[in-house]
Amino acid sequence: MEPRFAVLTLGVDNLGRAYNFYHDGLGFPSKGIVGKEFEHGEVVFFDMKNGMTLALYSRKNLAWDAGIPDSPTSSAEFSIAYNTKDEAEVDSVLELAKRAGAKITKPAQKAFWGGYHGYFEDPDGHLWEILWSPQLLPKD
Amino acid sequence: MEPRFAVLTLGVDNLGRAYNFYHDGLGFPSKGIVGKEFEHGEVVFFDMKNGMTLALYSRKNLAWDAGIPDSPTSSAEFSIAYNTKDEAEVDSVLELAKRAGAKITKPAQKAFWGGYHGYFEDPDGHLWEILWSPQLLPKD
Repeated sequence: MEPRFAVLTLGVDNLGRAYNFYHDGLGFPSKGIVGKEFEHGEVVFFDMKNGMTLALYSRKNLAWDAGIPDSPTSSAEFSIAYNTKDEAEVDSVLELAKRAGAKITKPAQKAFWGGYHGYFEDPDGHLWEILWSPQLLPKD
Repeated sequence: MEPRFAVLTLGVDNLGRAYNFYHDGLGFPSKGIVGKEFEHGEVVFFDMKNGMTLALYSRKNLAWDAGIPDSPTSSAEFSIAYNTKDEAEVDSVLELAKRAGAKITKPAQKAFWGGYHGYFEDPDGHLWEILWSPQLLPKD
């Protein structure tokens, strides 16, 4: 097995609401909801800059597709980190997310490891950490 | 906000167990558990091939860091997709994961969208989909 992955799929309760948050609110590019021709197929793909795909899929369909029971939301399962070029961009991204409907769970502040960061939850409770770290600057 | 993210952090119940699974079992490269000099700091980083980082962090610490309540495991929150070069590699990766201690929740089989796939859960219940799709072949 190679150390890589291609897609991160978020389980969501309402595909349209999640699409609006990421597409209209955060500005991620997408062709919208596709796969409607399949039962259990409705999905949204966002093309990320590093070749990754971020996908949205209903939590019920994800449980069905993976062969597991559906289960209630739990926000401490994982977080997605977005690195910024400077501290001010942490503030502006958190503000953008808040305007898009995110819940700020930790306002921007100094991090214990020396950087600057904050967290928000998307409409389905998925955590994003927005962080500035001199060791993790964007490559482009 | 740019359409990108840098790190996917998995909340885990036992950092050593999760490290063993991903490092010894799946073969992902890492310097091991670092950040022990900080309270709440213990973390594992895996350098992934596309410039991404996969991180392991205790669920309790993630909840603390993000300013949210800790909550029980829920496997339908998200899945990570690993794309293979052919169908046989789906079988072999699932077999590798099983030997490493994963729970196969869906054995390899034809997918409704035309490809071939299966799912496993890591020791903390995080879902990986191993899939072959002619539309999503590895780039290297």
